[in-house]
Amino acid sequence: MALEPVLIAGEWRQPANPTGSFKAIDPTAGKPLPESYPVSSIDDVTAAIRAAEDAALALRAIPVDAIGRFLDDYASRMEAAADALVERASRETGLPATPRLRNVELPRTTNQLRQGAAAARDRSWTQATIDTKANLRSYYGPLGGPVVVFGPNNFPFAFNSVAGGDFVAAIAAGNPVIGKANTGHPGTSKLLAELALEAARAAGLPPAMVQLVYRTSPDVGFVLVSDARVAATGFTGSKSAGLKLKAAADRAGKPIYLEMSSTNPVFVLPRALDERGAAIAKELYDSCAMGAGQFCTRPGLAVVPKGDKGSAFVAELAGLFKAGTAGTLLGPSGATAIAAALKELVAGGARVLAGGRAVDGDRAAFEPTLLEVSAKTFLDKPHELQTEAFGTVNTVVVADDVAQMAAVAATLDGNLTGCVYSDTTGKDDDDYARLAPVLRGKVGRLLNDKMPTGVAVSPAMNHGGPYPATGHPGFTAVGIPASLLRFAALRCYDAVRPHRLPAELANKNPTGKMWRLVDGNWSQGDVPE
Amino acid sequence: MALEPVLIAGEWRQPANPTGSFKAIDPTAGKPLPESYPVSSIDDVTAAIRAAEDAALALRAIPVDAIGRFLDDYASRMEAAADALVERASRETGLPATPRLRNVELPRTTNQLRQGAAAARDRSWTQATIDTKANLRSYYGPLGGPVVVFGPNNFPFAFNSVAGGDFVAAIAAGNPVIGKANTGHPGTSKLLAELALEAARAAGLPPAMVQLVYRTSPDVGFVLVSDARVAATGFTGSKSAGLKLKAAADRAGKPIYLEMSSTNPVFVLPRALDERGAAIAKELYDSCAMGAGQFCTRPGLAVVPKGDKGSAFVAELAGLFKAGTAGTLLGPSGATAIAAALKELVAGGARVLAGGRAVDGDRAAFEPTLLEVSAKTFLDKPHELQTEAFGTVNTVVVADDVAQMAAVAATLDGNLTGCVYSDTTGKDDDDYARLAPVLRGKVGRLLNDKMPTGVAVSPAMNHGGPYPATGHPGFTAVGIPASLLRFAALRCYDAVRPHRLPAELANKNPTGKMWRLVDGNWSQGDVPE
Repeated sequence: MALEPVLIAGEWRQPANPTGSFKAIDPTAGKPLPESYPVSSIDDVTAAIRAAEDAALALRAIPVDAIGRFLDDYASRMEAAADALVERASRETGLPATPRLRNVELPRTTNQLRQGAAAARDRSWTQATIDTKANLRSYYGPLGGPVVVFGPNNFPFAFNSVAGGDFVAAIAAGNPVIGKANTGHPGTSKLLAELALEAARAAGLPPAMVQLVYRTSPDVGFVLVSDARVAATGFTGSKSAGLKLKAAADRAGKPIYLEMSSTNPVFVLPRALDERGAAIAKELYDSCAMGAGQFCTRPGLAVVPKGDKGSAFVAELAGLFKAGTAGTLLGPSGATAIAAALKELVAGGARVLAGGRAVDGDRAAFEPTLLEVSAKTFLDKPHELQTEAFGTVNTVVVADDVAQMAAVAATLDGNLTGCVYSDTTGKDDDDYARLAPVLRGKVGRLLNDKMPTGVAVSPAMNHGGPYPATGHPGFTAVGIPASLLRFAALRCYDAVRPHRLPAELANKNPTGKMWRLVDGNWSQGDVPE
Repeated sequence: MALEPVLIAGEWRQPANPTGSFKAIDPTAGKPLPESYPVSSIDDVTAAIRAAEDAALALRAIPVDAIGRFLDDYASRMEAAADALVERASRETGLPATPRLRNVELPRTTNQLRQGAAAARDRSWTQATIDTKANLRSYYGPLGGPVVVFGPNNFPFAFNSVAGGDFVAAIAAGNPVIGKANTGHPGTSKLLAELALEAARAAGLPPAMVQLVYRTSPDVGFVLVSDARVAATGFTGSKSAGLKLKAAADRAGKPIYLEMSSTNPVFVLPRALDERGAAIAKELYDSCAMGAGQFCTRPGLAVVPKGDKGSAFVAELAGLFKAGTAGTLLGPSGATAIAAALKELVAGGARVLAGGRAVDGDRAAFEPTLLEVSAKTFLDKPHELQTEAFGTVNTVVVADDVAQMAAVAATLDGNLTGCVYSDTTGKDDDDYARLAPVLRGKVGRLLNDKMPTGVAVSPAMNHGGPYPATGHPGFTAVGIPASLLRFAALRCYDAVRPHRLPAELANKNPTGKMWRLVDGNWSQGDVPE
């Protein structure tokens, strides 16, 4: 039986010496889809790296506008192919075709591509810095080698290895990409890579600008992130896989940006409970149930003070979880992973108030599950009780008082987000001032009165945070242009003759609009001669 | 015999359970100085980390102006204590009191401190980014824990762990520092830490804002960079020590910024040789001999085309190296290290044209040494022939033509700098266009017609480069404000109520002059209500 081809050096080719094969699974029926995809051997990976190295060289002579054209055209081709993309993605992931895939995720993805195109053309992202007195000029430029992107299972478009956030950031910064498809949606990734290849050709980019393999053995994956010719890696996925890749990349001195795990704690202060406890419970449940709870920013932990209002909040929440329907998970392993995480949480001392079991039958699904634990127990076993359950699962931590809520915050691992709900008239302000500074140090994004799901693609977004939420606290995976900086090198020109400078650093502003830091002031003008 | 005290939690105290002791050595005489310094046990390190954690907490409530006052005041105190500092540093390092220490390095160091003070007050370094529509606001803020700084042996002031570039960057970004003195100049470090402590007290900073230990066993050093409460590390020193610390920090998910090794290649194009070969040879020798060749940016490799002019260049250079005087090295181990490096270079096929031996007697010194090797041999053994010899040592690589010079560039490891000398009337421009793109990808700073020693403290400087010159290609160790970003976390505020925002992200511009990126435009104004 023929295997699906991999995309290497601008060609869809049969895998070289594959070490196995796999099929995508329709999670609504637990049944494999017909196509077989290869597990790539080192031969495919080596060929892709070699071709990408050539692409990185060729890119030196290609105007930055070509990258803008590519990203815009790719977005248009995705829109034109929306029917096929949505159909395939829905079959492979179980995510609803509408509104989720067609009306939310696809537009988000094409929007990211177009924002990337605009950033590439605008060039302000390079933070060109000019010191006319010292005749020193610096900016962020391409890394000079390929970026490897490992996409996660939960966003077949928006974080796809050949179409999503890391892809856009790496391409817009001027680097070729080697995509490692998520094995949950290889067919979607293949369709996207076909469109990307057409768009790259049309824009005159090197044939190996975008390449795709589907799966590798762990050892071959380690080569992918650590080969001397690879410049950097972007990974979104599980902590266990991420940390193994990190170890391999670190040993080789290769940057790797990881987005791994987060419990996204939500703190509800006492007077907010008084004011609108039931409404907050509803918000929390809805956020937790969105996408069957399979968002990196899904709130997995809620911290509330004890007392009548606290108990009412927990009861309200338990009712919502009990009444909730179990969404289809991205694959059959999802339910197994949730069950394993629940075991850890229960062993740590949490009590199941609602749900707790996988749904019977062929569909991949798990009951919406609520757990409860005292803050005292949490403080005894903070590690176990922060186990991430990737689904509609929340653990409510009931604290004696706000001081204990702050103590819980102090024991938290690094998280992507942290939310504080407080009374709208200011009655919680003193307690907020006690809690927020502690929480601030633990999270990349601090929210007020708002659930963390919903990650706007804004220049001011931070989809990042302290380890182990990510591998570095200074970078964001979402938000253009900031996300591009992960895939850029700082390049300084010292007394370089004017005609040899890159356009971004010449006296004349290359676009007439690019922002540059000239002698300490941000300016869109030319550098005075 | 009493050991010198360590500085922990604002107190000069006797080390707790030291695991040994050491003395500084006067390299001009090869004799130990009288004071004994402790090798700190885990007890000192744990106490310092605990105190620094408290300092990081206390800093939340301390206005940023206090940090500016501290850095300015510290600079003034250094100037007032210049006699004692210069005397001690000269004795411990053998570096000339004048002009080097007093007239060059000390002013550079106080200038860095004052630039750091200005950056802390100005706050533009935080890159505050405001999206008014999405109500998202982000900036770079302190890491929330101490930064550990390991200082190198070659700049007792300017890169000192409690006074130099990494120190200023970490402090100006709002983090406490635990300094690990270089063991070559513990007494200088102690004098500096005394001044720092006085200045921190006067500014109302927490007592553990600056702490100092002198030496640890490797295991204790690994704890220092990997403890859960430590936020990040800055290290300048040898590749072997740097890579071991990196491995420990990486395993713990802790950022570590390394500045490790660099051969700083200088390429001389054919017509530049025609035009001014002898003058370039003189520049090269002078750059290589500066500070006895113990600069991170000392040019250790020169690449020239063969032929009459190439031979004349090599002969000229050999004459200069033979006639040169051997400067005093920073310590007796310097000569041993150079001899070991020469062995590697000769084993790789390089031939010694001048020098090659340690200077007889008690003074730590090594003859200025020039080696020559063909590009063909270099391309066969690029690894061996890039061995760094930390002294007045240069290896000239003689290439058949410019294509082979570019091939040499392509095999280079990551470097801090790379220089190209070309004919001033443009006759080398085509060859430059062939060589420079290859070299560009290998270096942090690309220079024209200029030697790499002399690292201006400019916002446009990049004292960084691809691995293994450093641990990450996106950061610089010199240049304010860019160097601060290494010791900062990206912090996003999502729908956070206005009165709870940090001043940098409030609608009102906190200084009236701070640069902020508001809705895509850099501005010094307020955000319109």
